[in-house]
Amino acid sequence: MTNDQPPRPSRRGFLKAGGAAVAAGAGLGTGLAAPQAALAKAQPHSADPQMAVEPFYGAHQSGIVTPQQSHTYVAALDLTTDRRDDVIALLRAWTDAAARLTQGGTAAALPAGDAGDNKSAPDSGDALGLGPNGLTVTFGFGPGLFAKDGKDRYGLAARRPAALVDLPRFNGDQLIAEKTGGDLFIQACANDQQVAFHAVRQLARLAYGTAAMRWGQAGFLSGPRGQTPRNLMGFKDGTNNPSTAKPQLMNEFVWAGASADAPWMEGGTYTVVRRIRITLEHWDNMELGFQEQVFGRHKYSGAPIGKKNEFDAVDLKEEDKDGNPVIPENSHVRLSNQASNNGAQILRRSYSYNDGTNFYIERWPPWRQETEYDAGLIFVAHQSDPRTGFIPINERLAKFDMMNQFTTHVGSAIFAVPPGAKPGSYIGAGLFET
Amino acid sequence: MTNDQPPRPSRRGFLKAGGAAVAAGAGLGTGLAAPQAALAKAQPHSADPQMAVEPFYGAHQSGIVTPQQSHTYVAALDLTTDRRDDVIALLRAWTDAAARLTQGGTAAALPAGDAGDNKSAPDSGDALGLGPNGLTVTFGFGPGLFAKDGKDRYGLAARRPAALVDLPRFNGDQLIAEKTGGDLFIQACANDQQVAFHAVRQLARLAYGTAAMRWGQAGFLSGPRGQTPRNLMGFKDGTNNPSTAKPQLMNEFVWAGASADAPWMEGGTYTVVRRIRITLEHWDNMELGFQEQVFGRHKYSGAPIGKKNEFDAVDLKEEDKDGNPVIPENSHVRLSNQASNNGAQILRRSYSYNDGTNFYIERWPPWRQETEYDAGLIFVAHQSDPRTGFIPINERLAKFDMMNQFTTHVGSAIFAVPPGAKPGSYIGAGLFET
Repeated sequence: MTNDQPPRPSRRGFLKAGGAAVAAGAGLGTGLAAPQAALAKAQPHSADPQMAVEPFYGAHQSGIVTPQQSHTYVAALDLTTDRRDDVIALLRAWTDAAARLTQGGTAAALPAGDAGDNKSAPDSGDALGLGPNGLTVTFGFGPGLFAKDGKDRYGLAARRPAALVDLPRFNGDQLIAEKTGGDLFIQACANDQQVAFHAVRQLARLAYGTAAMRWGQAGFLSGPRGQTPRNLMGFKDGTNNPSTAKPQLMNEFVWAGASADAPWMEGGTYTVVRRIRITLEHWDNMELGFQEQVFGRHKYSGAPIGKKNEFDAVDLKEEDKDGNPVIPENSHVRLSNQASNNGAQILRRSYSYNDGTNFYIERWPPWRQETEYDAGLIFVAHQSDPRTGFIPINERLAKFDMMNQFTTHVGSAIFAVPPGAKPGSYIGAGLFET
Repeated sequence: MTNDQPPRPSRRGFLKAGGAAVAAGAGLGTGLAAPQAALAKAQPHSADPQMAVEPFYGAHQSGIVTPQQSHTYVAALDLTTDRRDDVIALLRAWTDAAARLTQGGTAAALPAGDAGDNKSAPDSGDALGLGPNGLTVTFGFGPGLFAKDGKDRYGLAARRPAALVDLPRFNGDQLIAEKTGGDLFIQACANDQQVAFHAVRQLARLAYGTAAMRWGQAGFLSGPRGQTPRNLMGFKDGTNNPSTAKPQLMNEFVWAGASADAPWMEGGTYTVVRRIRITLEHWDNMELGFQEQVFGRHKYSGAPIGKKNEFDAVDLKEEDKDGNPVIPENSHVRLSNQASNNGAQILRRSYSYNDGTNFYIERWPPWRQETEYDAGLIFVAHQSDPRTGFIPINERLAKFDMMNQFTTHVGSAIFAVPPGAKPGSYIGAGLFET
């Protein structure tokens, strides 16, 4: 260690910005260290995506009906402690850190000097100066929080919501254990890739000794401004989502009510995450017309087949002059449509992922041995009850969807995402304290 | 296939934009199909990163001294053909497609109708409407183009530049074959992740039957505007790069001259790519002061140890009151400094990467079995001659750099990056035709 006088930190970079934090509506404690420039200009739904700030505290957690940011990092952790108090302490620490991070702060106050004392810094520092970037942090609870291997580790088994079911095995599932499941869930979304990962990394570090990373995954979404984004298959994705601008739709399909078995979940939601690898090389060689039959939509306009505009209604009854359905029987848009699923809807908030390439040896003709993209979709869907939402919808899709020729579900998880926290309280307080 | 009249494509989306293409200075052929909105507003170095356009044709290839965009996708391919004409045809097709893509176009003109005929579309369509996003595409030639397994497949063995050496094995190298090497190199950089990947994906597809993907890797760079970006270790990265604004520095250290053995490389460069995994979990637990000793810089300011400001000169001779060097002997900044390397400099243009997590079983105490980040640095460095650039610098670093405790080189490649192409010609024409 050098014994020279360390240079003083730049005040410009690390001024306390309590005023700005209050202005952003977050009930933060004192000592918020964050780039002044970011906080001073930060505002909700800023025209500048780097300066956008989303609230952390509230009736619902952010990151569910929040307009989708351009990047995400999702992660699941497994609890390694046997002590209920450790879990509560972790959730308190996560809540406080997430509140700071979402408002453009560091996970904890940085040391006063530039050259540190002999402690590890409370924040990795890689997001310094990047701005809040609309960061949201959303936490969820997996089945393992309530009971694991038949053991009620934290006295919570009786409070497990009936809606937090273990997902069934779906037709074609090829799940990889280390990309599946998890006791705790963190979803960070932001308009910058490093900001999203930075948040999860600090939170995972706060969990050392209490919970360990099970899987983590970066995702992205490149939307033409104000339009429905296209996924890596080149089709617009999310056209038929229920409108987040309609509270009655959100209350019906997304937000959990106050069920007798889990009153603490009121205002929360249930989230399903699936890692869906897509064989892009194979897909790219398909005829354009066939691709459109698979989706049931035109590729460039996004219109349902036979229609002109993206938001034209999907008419599942329409037939061509030979009496065949215009929207094919096994097309994705038909099978996933509300009308095919007893009126069920789920709120999809998915991201593409791109983990480079891997070398694969295929076990079927023509026995290719080649480098293939490890890319696809981090499917994320929120719903008031998976038993009427994702599960029946995906059971139908897994059996009949023509798209299955090009997709493989390799990761899967389900979480109860509790309601938002009040300032001074913490995420999940209702589960532990009422 | 439906026999209905397909809807006409939206003219708004796919008007030919020849005028705009000419304005952007690219000698494109006819039939450029691209979102009109993007091309009409596109301009070099636009204040709006989505609308920025970089030139494709020119004395040098773009993407080398181009101000660094926020995302990259780099890939290497292996040639599978034995015919020289196939290689030339591929380079011609790549040149034409890259010229279109960088100006905001699709890889080739899209079909006229929305519902296609029975052909696969010439472009995957996932970047439609996203704008040019400052896309650059840079091509390179690996040793395998000149000779492979002792075989001179294309009559080029005698034209291999002496500077295109096979990289030696460096101390600590843990190279994975399927992330190492490659006959051909594509680097796409853009201000949008999907736009960068889209470019490589179209180009890889054009290579079907001639060359096959060997490895691909996405990367990102999150810079506070106008400041040196921080890497995932939280330190500013690139402070000591030679200035791209100084042509004499670029001519000395980056651009290849007209050597007797490879006159066709004049105006090109030699590019080294290394995939460097960083054990972020371990790094995050290090004392801040120790992290600074490893780098030889202060973390928050970026100043050399003992100095106040990022761009203060690195004084390797300075000693503290006990006579010890202020910048530690084995610090990264000392070992990589020009003064420690016979005056050599290389132009680093690296990106972070983040491929989620993997489950590792460590083969050393304490024998951890855990999920760890698969994240780190896609190190990219350009130089006029690797024999005086990357190789001696990295030999020293690989032996002595304290940072090696936290980094593992798992991928490696070297390429001769030829000069830019003239409109009507193609990348590498000088190699094949003079």
